[in-house]
Amino acid sequence: MSAFIFEGFLSTPEMLDLFGESSVIQAMMDFEAALARAQAEEGLMPTACAQAIASVCKADLYDLPGLIADSRRSGSLAIPLVKKLTETVALFDKPAAGYVHWGSTSQDVIDTGMVLVTRRALGTIDRDLTRLVNALLGLARAHARSPVLARTLMQPAQVVTLGYKLLGWVAPLLRAQQRLRETAARCLRLQLGGAVGTLSAMGPQGPAVARRMAQSLGLSWSALAWHTQRDEWVALGTELGVLCGSLGKIARDLSLMAQGEIAELAEPSGRGRGGSSAMPHKRNPVSAMVALAAATRAPQRVAALLASMVQEHERGLGNWQAELAEWAGLFISTHGAVQALAEAAEGLEVDDKRMRANIEALQGLVSAEAVSMLLAGAMGKAGAHALMESLTHQALASGRHLREVTLEAITRDAALSGLHDRLAPLFDVDQAAEPAARIALEQLETLEAQARQLQSAPLPY
Amino acid sequence: MSAFIFEGFLSTPEMLDLFGESSVIQAMMDFEAALARAQAEEGLMPTACAQAIASVCKADLYDLPGLIADSRRSGSLAIPLVKKLTETVALFDKPAAGYVHWGSTSQDVIDTGMVLVTRRALGTIDRDLTRLVNALLGLARAHARSPVLARTLMQPAQVVTLGYKLLGWVAPLLRAQQRLRETAARCLRLQLGGAVGTLSAMGPQGPAVARRMAQSLGLSWSALAWHTQRDEWVALGTELGVLCGSLGKIARDLSLMAQGEIAELAEPSGRGRGGSSAMPHKRNPVSAMVALAAATRAPQRVAALLASMVQEHERGLGNWQAELAEWAGLFISTHGAVQALAEAAEGLEVDDKRMRANIEALQGLVSAEAVSMLLAGAMGKAGAHALMESLTHQALASGRHLREVTLEAITRDAALSGLHDRLAPLFDVDQAAEPAARIALEQLETLEAQARQLQSAPLPY
Amino acid sequence: MSAFIFEGFLSTPEMLDLFGESSVIQAMMDFEAALARAQAEEGLMPTACAQAIASVCKADLYDLPGLIADSRRSGSLAIPLVKKLTETVALFDKPAAGYVHWGSTSQDVIDTGMVLVTRRALGTIDRDLTRLVNALLGLARAHARSPVLARTLMQPAQVVTLGYKLLGWVAPLLRAQQRLRETAARCLRLQLGGAVGTLSAMGPQGPAVARRMAQSLGLSWSALAWHTQRDEWVALGTELGVLCGSLGKIARDLSLMAQGEIAELAEPSGRGRGGSSAMPHKRNPVSAMVALAAATRAPQRVAALLASMVQEHERGLGNWQAELAEWAGLFISTHGAVQALAEAAEGLEVDDKRMRANIEALQGLVSAEAVSMLLAGAMGKAGAHALMESLTHQALASGRHLREVTLEAITRDAALSGLHDRLAPLFDVDQAAEPAARIALEQLETLEAQARQLQSAPLPY
Amino acid sequence: MSAFIFEGFLSTPEMLDLFGESSVIQAMMDFEAALARAQAEEGLMPTACAQAIASVCKADLYDLPGLIADSRRSGSLAIPLVKKLTETVALFDKPAAGYVHWGSTSQDVIDTGMVLVTRRALGTIDRDLTRLVNALLGLARAHARSPVLARTLMQPAQVVTLGYKLLGWVAPLLRAQQRLRETAARCLRLQLGGAVGTLSAMGPQGPAVARRMAQSLGLSWSALAWHTQRDEWVALGTELGVLCGSLGKIARDLSLMAQGEIAELAEPSGRGRGGSSAMPHKRNPVSAMVALAAATRAPQRVAALLASMVQEHERGLGNWQAELAEWAGLFISTHGAVQALAEAAEGLEVDDKRMRANIEALQGLVSAEAVSMLLAGAMGKAGAHALMESLTHQALASGRHLREVTLEAITRDAALSGLHDRLAPLFDVDQAAEPAARIALEQLETLEAQARQLQSAPLPY
Repeated sequence: MSAFIFEGFLSTPEMLDLFGESSVIQAMMDFEAALARAQAEEGLMPTACAQAIASVCKADLYDLPGLIADSRRSGSLAIPLVKKLTETVALFDKPAAGYVHWGSTSQDVIDTGMVLVTRRALGTIDRDLTRLVNALLGLARAHARSPVLARTLMQPAQVVTLGYKLLGWVAPLLRAQQRLRETAARCLRLQLGGAVGTLSAMGPQGPAVARRMAQSLGLSWSALAWHTQRDEWVALGTELGVLCGSLGKIARDLSLMAQGEIAELAEPSGRGRGGSSAMPHKRNPVSAMVALAAATRAPQRVAALLASMVQEHERGLGNWQAELAEWAGLFISTHGAVQALAEAAEGLEVDDKRMRANIEALQGLVSAEAVSMLLAGAMGKAGAHALMESLTHQALASGRHLREVTLEAITRDAALSGLHDRLAPLFDVDQAAEPAARIALEQLETLEAQARQLQSAPLPY
Repeated sequence: MSAFIFEGFLSTPEMLDLFGESSVIQAMMDFEAALARAQAEEGLMPTACAQAIASVCKADLYDLPGLIADSRRSGSLAIPLVKKLTETVALFDKPAAGYVHWGSTSQDVIDTGMVLVTRRALGTIDRDLTRLVNALLGLARAHARSPVLARTLMQPAQVVTLGYKLLGWVAPLLRAQQRLRETAARCLRLQLGGAVGTLSAMGPQGPAVARRMAQSLGLSWSALAWHTQRDEWVALGTELGVLCGSLGKIARDLSLMAQGEIAELAEPSGRGRGGSSAMPHKRNPVSAMVALAAATRAPQRVAALLASMVQEHERGLGNWQAELAEWAGLFISTHGAVQALAEAAEGLEVDDKRMRANIEALQGLVSAEAVSMLLAGAMGKAGAHALMESLTHQALASGRHLREVTLEAITRDAALSGLHDRLAPLFDVDQAAEPAARIALEQLETLEAQARQLQSAPLPY
Repeated sequence: MSAFIFEGFLSTPEMLDLFGESSVIQAMMDFEAALARAQAEEGLMPTACAQAIASVCKADLYDLPGLIADSRRSGSLAIPLVKKLTETVALFDKPAAGYVHWGSTSQDVIDTGMVLVTRRALGTIDRDLTRLVNALLGLARAHARSPVLARTLMQPAQVVTLGYKLLGWVAPLLRAQQRLRETAARCLRLQLGGAVGTLSAMGPQGPAVARRMAQSLGLSWSALAWHTQRDEWVALGTELGVLCGSLGKIARDLSLMAQGEIAELAEPSGRGRGGSSAMPHKRNPVSAMVALAAATRAPQRVAALLASMVQEHERGLGNWQAELAEWAGLFISTHGAVQALAEAAEGLEVDDKRMRANIEALQGLVSAEAVSMLLAGAMGKAGAHALMESLTHQALASGRHLREVTLEAITRDAALSGLHDRLAPLFDVDQAAEPAARIALEQLETLEAQARQLQSAPLPY
Repeated sequence: MSAFIFEGFLSTPEMLDLFGESSVIQAMMDFEAALARAQAEEGLMPTACAQAIASVCKADLYDLPGLIADSRRSGSLAIPLVKKLTETVALFDKPAAGYVHWGSTSQDVIDTGMVLVTRRALGTIDRDLTRLVNALLGLARAHARSPVLARTLMQPAQVVTLGYKLLGWVAPLLRAQQRLRETAARCLRLQLGGAVGTLSAMGPQGPAVARRMAQSLGLSWSALAWHTQRDEWVALGTELGVLCGSLGKIARDLSLMAQGEIAELAEPSGRGRGGSSAMPHKRNPVSAMVALAAATRAPQRVAALLASMVQEHERGLGNWQAELAEWAGLFISTHGAVQALAEAAEGLEVDDKRMRANIEALQGLVSAEAVSMLLAGAMGKAGAHALMESLTHQALASGRHLREVTLEAITRDAALSGLHDRLAPLFDVDQAAEPAARIALEQLETLEAQARQLQSAPLPY
């Protein structure tokens, strides 16, 4: 019944396992065990009953595909799970069976199960974000002064450095890591409210049971259940969506710079990575592919989560269920993207020479703005802009370097000829890269410090 | 690795199987077998080689999870599949191995595999749409004259009949069935273009091979490959999205009419259907739930397909892969919704008495417009509207029926008292329902005929 | 050219003005004035030039529709704006014209203009969120103990209190207010980077100019431009999306409780509010309508913002522009929803009697779980659940109250008859509402305190 | 109140006008006039009254911003419009005022108004699609045999021709034109049902009135109103979404081929088109920009339309209104994209030399597959693939052409040396382009014929 064959190469085995049936059902079983224990501690059931229940809260004791199949008729996975759990407890301890799931409701166990699994998923994403960040910071340091074309509106613009560009990739990742941790700390909450959120069936001990459970599961809890208040939970989904956007931006840049005609960057290859079934020379940017796929899909997943927030009264009809079904996919493809880009970054091939050659091939056009601004001092901005437009056309038409064309032009013009010595350096690639290099070196310190801090802090969940 | 545990109760085992790994990989194998046979028939390989290849094009010969795992490294499921197929052929017939997948490309086999699976999925959805349509038509006939409140902006408006209302559910389903068939006939096309769509590796025989393959697989084919022209394919997805919207509309109405306080309709119950783990009296509208979940999710799936259309050059990076991964989910949840509503419609409980009681409970307010229009003849539209606003407020404040209040008022007014005899019938529920009943009976003929025609026509794919 | 006629009734005049052409272009002018002044202070231009520029940075001096029309050809609103501004400066002060927009780029002025307008929009939304929160808190206090049906999966479940229910509406609003402030504080950043983000044209004074500008505009600034790093900016959009989800949940509940057949809540009416052109008795929940429309649209707006994050290199092609065009709509419809619900909450009519009557009409079924749990102590959970299922069916079939049916049943059963005295109170509505009342009273303190704190704190932007 | 300043450069003045307040309100007035006339013809009102009504159904008689402002309170634009119309009629002809909007409902006039405006919008889009198609067909013919790189997964793959590539752009446009016409013919339907769809207020003449109106407005009509059955209407929106996807694909390819480092295509320039405020040499692909923005936005618009289909009962609350508000934007940005690409195509600069040079710069790698297939005949597929992988690496490492490296290799190998003469031509660019050229020339005939047929057929609406 593993219906999603084309998720495989956009995801990771680790994350597919995490949201797999065994893992999710075990998390739901963990809820039931913790509930029984907390109730025993509060005197709502004999300790022996709680032990009897907890001892069979083990997913591998159950026919998982059968449970899922049964969920269709009842409209909820919790109903067959509680039924089978109760039957199993009864085999060993009849009275204990009466206490299974006591005072709780289907959504309590399902939501909390998802919270537990999500916590692990977040840890996994955080771990590989660190890998990606560190690999990019290393590359940024190594290429902090390496000139590369900056491009705007998909046209060559001016010269920056690769390090500068890479820090533009890193900064959003660090912010995402920070925001994901904060948001997780808010939303990893025990769901325990009973039928309509009031814990009424547990009597006055309800809150105490909830606090004990929350502590034993390492979650927070609030007296207002979040059965139909999904804002904090969905906010976690939106953070993943933002992260996928930032990953997609990296992947887009990477794929553009890896085009055969540009060839400034290349993903690592070897052992079949990115090969083609038809073309032996191909080296496909498969990591960028995975991240771009995630960035194409994530906005819609987030929209689905947001759309499912309009939940009726004390339990939603169709919307909560839609949220449940959409949740895993967002984590799975986000982790696929993070891991793929981490792999790519750790083995990234940078061709400094080609980056420089691509600048040179543009015949100095990327210096046009700088030259224009210099000339503006002598002839006004409008005149300078017009002159440079004309000179760039001359350069393009003749195939000559803009430096030559410009130097000729100002030599002919008495009012400008004094600028000769200040003009030549504007065409020097390394000098053109200097402002970007300066920012890169300065920001490297800042971002490395930020990364160190994030990486040394314990996860707040 | 079946990661999508919460799809189970929103879908059907049949559809999960159809898009499962065994079914999809078999469809890809069917492509490879048909390719080999067609090439043999065109003299591109010995017939024996084609037979050798075709004889091992059986999904159950292969380690499917292994293939999927390998797809991660290469970035495509086709690459490990072709590799394993080639190795397997080589075990039996070394020379034949050299002909496997000859002149084709990864996207050819994957796209065609999905086309073959999708054709079966469409047949399944069509079959259960027929069930749903027929059940609703039956109910519409049985209740063609049964008065029920019409409601606008979620407020009671006037009286129609249940049959009238149900035909409003049916008509879009018949249109969807029709449009799905037309769109399917356009988009169920063989993908066979080779590396860049030109079939160049097969030499002049390319088109003939393609035509033979298309015929043997029962698909159409065009000389322009659709590797990055996804319009017809995605248009099929949008039709499913529209269908889910129509199903969601049915489910919303059903869930509103099934509210405990309204209780006009009820889903069938029994054998655990729609029970509650906490509340023994609950009878949850689980079919509506499944359809509402589909309607919440489908718009975003469609958006994902549309967003993935912007594919680069002759094969897209990330977008085609996103489309592949999103495709199955849309079919799976659509079929879940169709089947759930078919089940609900086939066992739907209609409470004619309660429908009538709900009208009565509104103290005649639903006749206000009709009365207003009658009075307008005597006193002008504005005056009549104002009078009726005041009388309805009186009726509400006093708890009396609007009929009494109105008859009293016109009796006091010489200019209106002549209307007495024409007024009373306006408050008759059956008479108020008459216009809707007339439309229902007339449209029943039309829609039943349309349904018969659709159901007797062979599927055009 | 005001093309969006059907936004009018889903929005507010205030917000439409804020994102109107005059307001946005003035904000862009404010950027240009602040840039000139900061550059003068850093010695990059004479003070007189900066004054000359600033003195014509007034939107009402310009032909705004003409500017917008010209933006089409150049692909950017900034280009005609800078051109006209330069021409206007030149009329008064020729040399100053040469300094207009010096060292800046189109995206700097557009992004910063949007930041300035967005800051005001956020203040407006925050102000009306406070209104909405306070009105709901007032209602919650007034009805903290008023019994009302809780409903799950759109079926009656158990009894809670209206105050309890309303606090479930309030809590997400307070969280949204908090999160919006935090996110705004992060993302209301000056955009100033020049052509490729390095401020290269301003030489070494670049960062100092940026810091001065940021201070004068009341924004933060960082040395890494955010031209193609939209994560923090889009995160603000996602927060609005989450808020719209929470508003939609409120509106859904409100519209369900305002149904004519349920009639527990009603929006304020009068002066044409929510009238019908055809039906004099109608009183449409138009505030809920506005909020539901916002909740239907917001997920897709958020998806559009997320989808536009994948921006190429140092300035995106098509995606940045899509983000710009989508931005305003999200704010406009969010504010429409907040204001509409504030209006509804401030005049909300609550029918405590009807709420109680709706509970009574269910013949005690909502006590079934509580009774079941009591019986479970005597006969085990499964037996109790089965007995209660049977008794609820009896009650429904006979039209009798579950209390009677149950008391009869246990009287006949020696093992259960001792429970008689503990059973009767379970059917008492006020007692059934007690757990919810307790939570409501306790949480009221918490949420009121949280509201006071938020409302007394200055906006952090 | 024109709040959408950043739509301006992504749209067209023509389409903004069409969906502007004057045009939409006039269309609603056209409905009211046609209704009065049809009712007079059926004897429901005196002819003089119908004339009195029709004579003031002129949008420019009314305070349009005032109407829109009033729509906020009533929750519908139709209510103030009917009120003002009635008052205006009353000024001239008191009795006629009583007949305004007789038997109709708000949604009738709004939906039909949108249908009328949408018909004109479709005609405009169709017209410019024709321009775009014809320009592309002309280019395809001119460059049917011009070699250009095919690229897969954003890596150079093999050689095709520009004409072949352009036909891949054209075919989906022709299909879109076809499908839009068919879908429009289905969905351009008069909405006329009265309060709950039954036309009850008009008595037995209802259907005849509707048929007359439909005829006079040139629309179809069906006895089942489509107030809450939006499938055909939304299906039109999905077709636009598919079209935007196809336009986005063209724009992506164009922008990639226009990159400064590739420079195979360039958008027309001149008169400020695509200039940069900062960089005089820039020539930005602004048409591609507009189309990419449309393709980024359209999927979400379509999702919003689909999400708004779940409409309650006989008139939706919030969802219909959301659909109304989203509708125009989709048409506006689609037309922006069509017109922008038509402009680009009509002035497209094609650099055949550069296309060839880009192939040559790849050192023959694009012939690797063809060579591999030739060698496979002699040494088996696997061996050939491995040999070619090794030879391509040699070529890359040494900077030599793959032809030389390969010829050397087979010369050294007795088993292969006989292939020498068949090998050399595989490296000939024109010969490599031959299969694509053949398809291009053949498909040109087909597509040109299809275009001629579409363009000579009258619009079916």
